[in-house]
Amino acid sequence: MHFTSEPRLADGVLEREFTLGEIPGILWTPESASASAPVPLVLLGHPPLGLHKMYPRLVARAQRAAADGFAAATIELPGSGERPRSATADQARADLRRAREAGEPVDEEIVDRLVLPLVDKSVPEWQDALDALLSLPEIEGPVGYSGGVISIGIRLAVVEPRISAAVLFAGTVVPRALFEEARQVTIPLHVLLQWDDEANDRQAALALFDAFGSKEKTLHANMGGHTGVPQFAGDAAARFLARHLK
Amino acid sequence: MHFTSEPRLADGVLEREFTLGEIPGILWTPESASASAPVPLVLLGHPPLGLHKMYPRLVARAQRAAADGFAAATIELPGSGERPRSATADQARADLRRAREAGEPVDEEIVDRLVLPLVDKSVPEWQDALDALLSLPEIEGPVGYSGGVISIGIRLAVVEPRISAAVLFAGTVVPRALFEEARQVTIPLHVLLQWDDEANDRQAALALFDAFGSKEKTLHANMGGHTGVPQFAGDAAARFLARHLK
Repeated sequence: MHFTSEPRLADGVLEREFTLGEIPGILWTPESASASAPVPLVLLGHPPLGLHKMYPRLVARAQRAAADGFAAATIELPGSGERPRSATADQARADLRRAREAGEPVDEEIVDRLVLPLVDKSVPEWQDALDALLSLPEIEGPVGYSGGVISIGIRLAVVEPRISAAVLFAGTVVPRALFEEARQVTIPLHVLLQWDDEANDRQAALALFDAFGSKEKTLHANMGGHTGVPQFAGDAAARFLARHLK
Repeated sequence: MHFTSEPRLADGVLEREFTLGEIPGILWTPESASASAPVPLVLLGHPPLGLHKMYPRLVARAQRAAADGFAAATIELPGSGERPRSATADQARADLRRAREAGEPVDEEIVDRLVLPLVDKSVPEWQDALDALLSLPEIEGPVGYSGGVISIGIRLAVVEPRISAAVLFAGTVVPRALFEEARQVTIPLHVLLQWDDEANDRQAALALFDAFGSKEKTLHANMGGHTGVPQFAGDAAARFLARHLK
């Protein structure tokens, strides 16, 4: 892990860009965090639109995490931003768009082609990032995961024991295989669902919520489309993390 | 409205029993409430088990309301507690129990017989209570409604313009006619659903949530049975009211 930017301090939050091998990332820590007062960590998931495009929303979530006393960090997803694009994923995305524009049901095979390679590739990267982040003296556990591609969150929650709570956003197509993995999730979950999400099948999202094996799981459904998560729903998600990471 | 008990003060909350004609009720006000500093009001709905039986849970909700700076009040439902029982309701409840024990689908006609007379009779009583409560110098609006029989909450939200936000508990059978009334509800709603509620059909509860006409409506679904609403879900409901009544 190499820090690649000068630290920037804004509103009590220290922002540092880094690379982990080829993968760019950003780390935010509360100004108060130190080796003698290390803080919990929230991994900030995001859709595969590139860190640059997502930056304003990520920074807002990092500031909220810092206000709660947590560090926050994110890494670029495979195929996004400056990272090499994936021809397979681009093709699957085009096929998905075509099916939707034609009003056809989306074939499971397309969903598998779009999502499974992303999950397989990105989850070990998030785990590597976690290794590096937890080796910093100002960060210690517990670790939460929040947002982004829900299939990545599911896999991480299953394979990564250092993650102790997760906020998941039921906002994208989920391969059948991940429904099975969802049954193995046992950590506390806070699931956000936009009731009129144009990119997401509501019944599938409810079935996925039902499938999670966690004893503590909460579904917060709100009105509006994919990007319309209300401020109070973001606040509630932050409070969930605060309750579990403190 | 006649106060029938000596005021009792506990933990900064003043408790007074009252009657409104034949109907017993309880009013809780923060110690700080006065004619020069009147407070908002939360009407505490409850299941038809009698105020005496419900008292411990009602008092806990009233204390939370008072901590948020709100008065809270409740009245006995028709057919409950010391009020005359309804032979029709008792018969319908027995028929409902029989259908459930036999594992049969519950006939709409039984649901209508059980719930519609209760709604028709109790809603004007809550409105009369609201008249009396808002005439007290230490209470003013806005007014919220929280909990209890969801069909009563739906009708109140439709017919009573002084109620500006409601927490509803999707925990009982709802007559078909109330689904239609739900479309006319426009105030902000916070709906609680216990995912494994043995007394409630989950799909019907989700359809009811979908039916509400409110632009701001949130569903909080949590694990567990009818009486298993987690503490953090009660906290979230209280924050919803605080956000809308302040």
